[in-house]
Amino acid sequence: MTSAPADIPQTLQDLLPKWAHFCLYAGRFVEEELGIDLDGRRVLVGLSGGVDSTALLLVLHYLSKRVDFTVGAAHLDHQLRPESAGDAAFARSLCENLGIDCVVESCDVARLAEERGVGLEEAGREARYRLYAALRESGGYDYVALGHQLDDLSEDVLMRLIRGAGWPGLSGMPGYDPLRALIRPLLLIPKSTLRAFVTHVGTGWREDASNADPTMTRNRVRNEILPLIEKENPAFWQSVARLWRIGRVEQDFWDGLESGACENLDNTRLKSLHKAERLHLYKACLDRLGPGQALADTLFKLDEAWREKRNSAVFQFPGDKTATITASGVVFSPKH
Amino acid sequence: MTSAPADIPQTLQDLLPKWAHFCLYAGRFVEEELGIDLDGRRVLVGLSGGVDSTALLLVLHYLSKRVDFTVGAAHLDHQLRPESAGDAAFARSLCENLGIDCVVESCDVARLAEERGVGLEEAGREARYRLYAALRESGGYDYVALGHQLDDLSEDVLMRLIRGAGWPGLSGMPGYDPLRALIRPLLLIPKSTLRAFVTHVGTGWREDASNADPTMTRNRVRNEILPLIEKENPAFWQSVARLWRIGRVEQDFWDGLESGACENLDNTRLKSLHKAERLHLYKACLDRLGPGQALADTLFKLDEAWREKRNSAVFQFPGDKTATITASGVVFSPKH
Repeated sequence: MTSAPADIPQTLQDLLPKWAHFCLYAGRFVEEELGIDLDGRRVLVGLSGGVDSTALLLVLHYLSKRVDFTVGAAHLDHQLRPESAGDAAFARSLCENLGIDCVVESCDVARLAEERGVGLEEAGREARYRLYAALRESGGYDYVALGHQLDDLSEDVLMRLIRGAGWPGLSGMPGYDPLRALIRPLLLIPKSTLRAFVTHVGTGWREDASNADPTMTRNRVRNEILPLIEKENPAFWQSVARLWRIGRVEQDFWDGLESGACENLDNTRLKSLHKAERLHLYKACLDRLGPGQALADTLFKLDEAWREKRNSAVFQFPGDKTATITASGVVFSPKH
Repeated sequence: MTSAPADIPQTLQDLLPKWAHFCLYAGRFVEEELGIDLDGRRVLVGLSGGVDSTALLLVLHYLSKRVDFTVGAAHLDHQLRPESAGDAAFARSLCENLGIDCVVESCDVARLAEERGVGLEEAGREARYRLYAALRESGGYDYVALGHQLDDLSEDVLMRLIRGAGWPGLSGMPGYDPLRALIRPLLLIPKSTLRAFVTHVGTGWREDASNADPTMTRNRVRNEILPLIEKENPAFWQSVARLWRIGRVEQDFWDGLESGACENLDNTRLKSLHKAERLHLYKACLDRLGPGQALADTLFKLDEAWREKRNSAVFQFPGDKTATITASGVVFSPKH
């Protein structure tokens, strides 16, 4: 369908109690686990028209009438599939029926990918995030809400494991990314629940055929590896949700360590720290210097060089950042 | 083959330089990463006759002439397969050729499994560990060395992820288990390297047909899931080795936190800690009370109850251990 039916529940009270509770659960997750108070805020939903972002728009729409915040939507037509105009039409009509502002833009993602020399998935993400950032500016939005859910998180954890993430990175994507003002209110909810919810509300949604494309790593993880894992443990999604929670708590703990300035990484301070603390601190100082993920192996080598007092040893990190061992400690430098 | 050839290299100097370096690398791993000095010690090798434990016996044999420690071996005939007598004969002749003491015992593992109501894998492990413990006592061994290698570690990490491990448990089995005096000198070495090493030495080894049995979770992880992951990242074993190293450093960090007595978990102390510290501390205090893995979910609930001052709330943990919220803090109690 390219237009969403108009006769859908308009408030929490119009929903079956279990689905009203479901919306309230998502609201509590944002408040308690992400630490975000939406009261009086403006939230932009990244709306592809798929079941996840449709569910997200609906959940926030129902919550917004209770908590008093404003919901807007943004749809980017990637021009990659013949159905994409239909996706845009669906997004527009869904928002219209709910009385939600919706911006639809278009981008030749295939050309962008070629220009940048990156994959379609990455180019699409880049284009969307650029649109969201522009609309935050022009539309005065405080947060950008994305429809990632627990199946996405499971894939993400597996992909991070495969690529060789450290900890707490291995526990998956954050629910709140302050740098880009992103929030993921549905992150601990299985996709099957979102499907049941949208089915109940009755708006319908658009299927994304690219999800079945086996040339994308993500789809191979989703369609080949995850089903084997879920055969071993049908409650694997619970394992992932638990790991995510542990990761958030520990990330917060290590973030607290950073409070000391990175300019001041002298030997006295470094010697007072446990190796685990030093490794997290190195990473935090590098992250502050700009984009580029520090590799755990290089951090280990840096710490070894510091312990062995290998003065003048220089370590290169992605993003052209460097760390140098000096007589008085470790000095981090940005790209020059 | 059921008897190992006698004309094999007897010292490090008789090996190709690359294999001599390989043995020295394993020795450094034990010394530096596991923090164990083997000088003057007695080490018992758990010898199945498979390629891993054969490699382990050889590596320790060559190192023992250089570092000066004593190597013994123990083989348990599980009586599960017709070839098992041949495995025992191979273990015996291998040790004879190397001049190593070898104890061969026999156990009806199938019957043990039935009596205990556990799987064959678990019953076999239990029988082996019982033998090792008995020989440590009677043979005066300081350490029991096991042949687990990097492929085993990869499986272990995946199985822990699937079952829902927390952190640092997710990073895999320890290289040194002080409780049972176990060491795993080959833990960061891929199985393919061990195969090449034993091929070079020329002793041969015994193949274990049960490794192909798809009714065991471990074998499905090994034969179905891991190959798909290694297709995505052929250097996945490096990711696992890195994660293991990070996990060891962080385990050591959190172990340091335990130094405060668990009897003294009063509100003043608990309030001074970050949630991450409290969760690790709860777990450490429960671990001290005996066997039984505390579930992360229950630890989260315990912490919530403590924060909400739900006095008299009692939480049950595996191994019949309990935690109780009192007016003054949290009290842990063993099985009574």
